[in-house]
Amino acid sequence: MTFWLNGAFREETRAIDVADRGFLLGDGVFETILLVDGVPAFWDAHRARLDDALEALRFPVRSDAFALTAARELAARARADAGAGVLRLTVARGPAGRGLAPPVPAEAAPTLLMTAQAMAPYPDEPAALVVSKVRRSSASLSSRFKTATYLDNLMARGDAAAAGADDALMLNERGRVVCASAANVFVLKDDATLATPPVGEGALPGTVRALLLARGAEAGFAVREAALAPAELSGRALILTNSLMGVRPAVIGGVAAPTRADALLSRLQMWYRAVLTEDVEQRARQL
Amino acid sequence: MTFWLNGAFREETRAIDVADRGFLLGDGVFETILLVDGVPAFWDAHRARLDDALEALRFPVRSDAFALTAARELAARARADAGAGVLRLTVARGPAGRGLAPPVPAEAAPTLLMTAQAMAPYPDEPAALVVSKVRRSSASLSSRFKTATYLDNLMARGDAAAAGADDALMLNERGRVVCASAANVFVLKDDATLATPPVGEGALPGTVRALLLARGAEAGFAVREAALAPAELSGRALILTNSLMGVRPAVIGGVAAPTRADALLSRLQMWYRAVLTEDVEQRARQL
Repeated sequence: MTFWLNGAFREETRAIDVADRGFLLGDGVFETILLVDGVPAFWDAHRARLDDALEALRFPVRSDAFALTAARELAARARADAGAGVLRLTVARGPAGRGLAPPVPAEAAPTLLMTAQAMAPYPDEPAALVVSKVRRSSASLSSRFKTATYLDNLMARGDAAAAGADDALMLNERGRVVCASAANVFVLKDDATLATPPVGEGALPGTVRALLLARGAEAGFAVREAALAPAELSGRALILTNSLMGVRPAVIGGVAAPTRADALLSRLQMWYRAVLTEDVEQRARQL
Repeated sequence: MTFWLNGAFREETRAIDVADRGFLLGDGVFETILLVDGVPAFWDAHRARLDDALEALRFPVRSDAFALTAARELAARARADAGAGVLRLTVARGPAGRGLAPPVPAEAAPTLLMTAQAMAPYPDEPAALVVSKVRRSSASLSSRFKTATYLDNLMARGDAAAAGADDALMLNERGRVVCASAANVFVLKDDATLATPPVGEGALPGTVRALLLARGAEAGFAVREAALAPAELSGRALILTNSLMGVRPAVIGGVAAPTRADALLSRLQMWYRAVLTEDVEQRARQL
């Protein structure tokens, strides 16, 4: 496997320091980015979110440490440049002395890792959801950003797997729906209105989520943030969104979404794919 | 630095796989153990808690992978066998494919890491505490066990450092006191009663905490679990406990504990040191 670590392409995978706080304490952040024929999709949005996380966690590095050209070359070297692939940017605090205090600035040596791999397409069927018992802490930085402190999400996904489902909805400490283990959730409130929980409820500010909120009107939907009780999902069409799956219909508790919603959600998916294609084509021209 | 990794003593610190879920997703657990002249203190209690965590997270390995003799030899090689030292046992999920699902059993290759280092003694003064804005999620496995998903604790400690304090009290989602960033908290309710928040509130089941609950009567205290509102700490003597500091007086908001409590807490500290010494001497005879 070829990967990129702190500026160099590498093959020997035993490369992370045993004292890296990313490994010892979950002290890191990451982005998962869709590759379309080796071109990172929505690169600017991912970089902006990564910068927000790096600033919030007081990392002494910013997203410009990951060059688009290096990402593109990595995709080719990792044979993830045909069809769909996944690019992961990881920033960990790096090696440090014992204890919880981060290294002083003069000794900080963050770990910058980029990996790429091919990805099988998501199935066409709706994702089957269950409700996880794991509660998401609305005010935690690990809810607000994609951090290496991911155990709650892993446990929620485990709940789903144990129930034979694809993913699990997570509720926050007030019992309200916030997101799935690694996806945002939207509910079709009526034929033209989609609602998704606010970031303040503990929802990750996903890149596809932000796109739908900003531009969903182009697909004929009023898209807004709203606190959601679990009961409000019942009998309604749902979608999951994230960078890799894009817009994916979902059903909860094995109950199929109303059929009339299918055409509406297809329209949204088509619009999303067009926006994605436009972004990737524009990016490809920079390369 | 000498460390122990999956059964072998090693020196080259770049030894963790870039695909290790401990590094990428905080999918790991650990124990921090006091070394007294190179002998791990309360070894059985730490092993039992580690086994609880490994079982809860469905790791295909148990604590007997860490041999006492290897720990002792590591302490000597790492020059942590004179005076106080720290032994850290870390178990991470190991390398795995993309996504949140853990590796299938046949492909599971957990990472077992043991490190040792000398430790400066804790100061005699009480620890100065502030209340963190970070909320602890009472039902999370990352509250119930020492996991590599540690960002909330790091942020709480950061709150303390920013305020010039030694540590930060964390409240749970109901606003009740649960513990410090890496220590349990007890409040002296009256001259003979100590109370500490229940595990169900989000408190880590610390080894020193368990010892005080089980045997504090030997030091003249009734020690019990009780939900604690922040106001109940006001004007009362506090202690922090963990494996490394043992029993340490603490003050919140710069307000000194009542003087009459000093003698009571000294008695508790003396008792604790005697129990610790007895455990270590007994362990040393096994080596």
